Amino acid sequence: MTLQLDQTHDPRATSWVPSAQRAGTDFPIQNLPLGVFRRPGSGESRIGVAIGDQVLDLARAMAIGALQLEPGYYDCVAAPRLNSLLGRGRRALQAVRSAVFALLREDSPLPRPSEDCLVASAAVELLLPVEIGDYTDFYASIHHATNVGKMLRPDQPLLPNYKWIPIGYHGRASSIVASGTPVQRPVGQIRPSPDAPPSVHATKAFDYECEVGLVVGKGSALGHPVPLGEAEDHLAALCLVNDWSARDIQAWEYQPLGPFLAKNFATSLSPWLVTLDALEPFRVPLADREPGDPAPLDYLAPGERGSRAGFAIELEVGITSLRMRSEGIAPMRLSRCSFDRMYWSPAQLVAHHTMNGCNLRPGDLLASGTVSGPDPGSQGCLLELTWRGSHPITLPTGEVRRFLEDGDEIVMRGTCSRDGYPRIGFGECRGVVLAASESA
Amino acid sequence: MTLQLDQTHDPRATSWVPSAQRAGTDFPIQNLPLGVFRRPGSGESRIGVAIGDQVLDLARAMAIGALQLEPGYYDCVAAPRLNSLLGRGRRALQAVRSAVFALLREDSPLPRPSEDCLVASAAVELLLPVEIGDYTDFYASIHHATNVGKMLRPDQPLLPNYKWIPIGYHGRASSIVASGTPVQRPVGQIRPSPDAPPSVHATKAFDYECEVGLVVGKGSALGHPVPLGEAEDHLAALCLVNDWSARDIQAWEYQPLGPFLAKNFATSLSPWLVTLDALEPFRVPLADREPGDPAPLDYLAPGERGSRAGFAIELEVGITSLRMRSEGIAPMRLSRCSFDRMYWSPAQLVAHHTMNGCNLRPGDLLASGTVSGPDPGSQGCLLELTWRGSHPITLPTGEVRRFLEDGDEIVMRGTCSRDGYPRIGFGECRGVVLAASESA
Repeated sequence: MTLQLDQTHDPRATSWVPSAQRAGTDFPIQNLPLGVFRRPGSGESRIGVAIGDQVLDLARAMAIGALQLEPGYYDCVAAPRLNSLLGRGRRALQAVRSAVFALLREDSPLPRPSEDCLVASAAVELLLPVEIGDYTDFYASIHHATNVGKMLRPDQPLLPNYKWIPIGYHGRASSIVASGTPVQRPVGQIRPSPDAPPSVHATKAFDYECEVGLVVGKGSALGHPVPLGEAEDHLAALCLVNDWSARDIQAWEYQPLGPFLAKNFATSLSPWLVTLDALEPFRVPLADREPGDPAPLDYLAPGERGSRAGFAIELEVGITSLRMRSEGIAPMRLSRCSFDRMYWSPAQLVAHHTMNGCNLRPGDLLASGTVSGPDPGSQGCLLELTWRGSHPITLPTGEVRRFLEDGDEIVMRGTCSRDGYPRIGFGECRGVVLAASESA
Repeated sequence: MTLQLDQTHDPRATSWVPSAQRAGTDFPIQNLPLGVFRRPGSGESRIGVAIGDQVLDLARAMAIGALQLEPGYYDCVAAPRLNSLLGRGRRALQAVRSAVFALLREDSPLPRPSEDCLVASAAVELLLPVEIGDYTDFYASIHHATNVGKMLRPDQPLLPNYKWIPIGYHGRASSIVASGTPVQRPVGQIRPSPDAPPSVHATKAFDYECEVGLVVGKGSALGHPVPLGEAEDHLAALCLVNDWSARDIQAWEYQPLGPFLAKNFATSLSPWLVTLDALEPFRVPLADREPGDPAPLDYLAPGERGSRAGFAIELEVGITSLRMRSEGIAPMRLSRCSFDRMYWSPAQLVAHHTMNGCNLRPGDLLASGTVSGPDPGSQGCLLELTWRGSHPITLPTGEVRRFLEDGDEIVMRGTCSRDGYPRIGFGECRGVVLAASESA
């Protein structure tokens, strides 16, 4: 679908919620991301939109007539997860965006909603926004693939298929957790050297992976490939993903069928889903296809519009150790990279995923794979940053990190900026490492 | 949990449903597998138990008081899928089994249920019995792994990790279909030779894989490994799985992260879930661990009871071509193998899957991987049987098969037999190959 920029993209628009104009907010009125929250002391999951430091309760605002949407929307706006709403497709999400914009803009003629429609973000618990049926993890950064390949195969870092096929594999949906959920260091089979037998202990190579998640909106039917030109009709929003990894478990288990227990103990998701509509002003061409590279096969060949199939999302990963937090030291930045450094676009990932007839369901998660760039400090995981531990990182406290230690907290952020337009952001994807459950 | 054989395992027990005693039935009263069906002309999914050639409608039998279960069971017995019932655990399934047995046995003192509680199997549509949250596919037959390895690495067929670690990977849940659903030949990227670029066309190496599915009952919590001794508490039932595969797509895509589009276009599931309780009389030791093999690491080391951790399920795969069916020719048997030829037991697969804290949810599917034995004709897929097409198979019509052709139908069956006990079976897992959607 071709999106027209509309009044919701007016860079001068402001909201009567004062914090939406505060410098540094991720959530000006141009963003309006969707999430699911729980009010203090309540067991009920509710759908909300972030505005400044507040959350708008959509069902409540609609019930009192402040949020003007067709009545047919009520059931999916009052649902405990976003799947039904996202499943209605891009036009429905645009309708919600327009209605929320109309309600929240400074000069809205609509009556202000009662106070209980807005809740302070700091007071609510943010939950997983969708029920994820299937989780697919791609490998779409050529820099990441090249770096990992260099460690394993110095003479041929990139496998012959890489520039032809968006490499992906299926991950575990059951262990996807909301940002803020602590993540326990996994135990696994690890072989210390090729000459020794494996033994069972907690991973000594606990890593994060900074990724962007693509959340499926409208589903696709089994047996019906989604053409590239329609691929974005099936994407509702983007978010941040931390695909926690245990490198030593991975090294021993992954041949011949791919990563399994090295990944499926936990994956963290950021709570706010930034819609493709909100991201429309930040479209850019993808940066990393080189002149000598093979042309994409027809089903992956972008047309004119596809030449801006990337999104300029600046990603940052920060770390604090337990000691840093106890001494009040701010997070140290580990890496910074832009999502437009990917070799394959979100649309190409969707087209590839469905080319064999595989179906997508609303709420499915497709993650980009670790987002790494070519420059020093632009690698999205410690495996690359410390080159498998051989170049340790020193924290402000003097503590040294090859991989993550118990108590370390990883915080990911994503923001989109361009001249003359308010910055929008993804909020945080946060997780602290807990000790393994038993000394194994 | 230790199961006592009880009256439901009495080999002399018979049912007042005459077809339950018919020679060759898969469903004598000692079996009582669970499934989900739809009556003709109805949109409603209902939970049933197979008995002879009939299906007992559990909620209806309970509602009229014929099936005597505590009232607390009604909601999960009246649900549209089996997840809630299975999630209550082995004791709940035993209670259902005992109540159904009490109702259906020949000498039952209970009033016979009204006619509308029993429906002819032939008249109903059998649906997917569970909503599958996550699907994991293992690789637990050492014969299959060795054969596939021989084709890729003649000098080192079995990778160093195989005898230490139950190899597994995540599959796609969205494309799991009920037995009887036709399966469309997938299109994909295929590289004809290492010197040529890949192109996009329908697979020329369409294969089936005969597997056994393990269906999770009681879930396990994130961060809490399931010890081997408790593993079977989390398994509700077994069924048949056809993990359709496109070998040429797989060969090009699978490095370094494993199979993806070569598998996720469809996986077929048999409709009847045969409970572990029904399978208890068919426990056997696993056959294929050799004297020189490494001892399983502690978390996989079976105790005394674990020495009978296998199940003697005889699996058969049959094929009919379109022409065979049009000429009324019966299915030709492609292979026959026993599930006790696996290297890893169902309990070991569960213990391994959760050792890192990965959680299981009721209805999750763990498939064994292709069940292949050491003898000629005991290989569970065409890749092995025709040795990658180099030893084609001739059908009774004179047609030749290297891999599957459009119109071919694959039928899998599983049965358990032993002296002095009625044979029980799994019914069929059936699927016909449709032509690719467009000539690509």
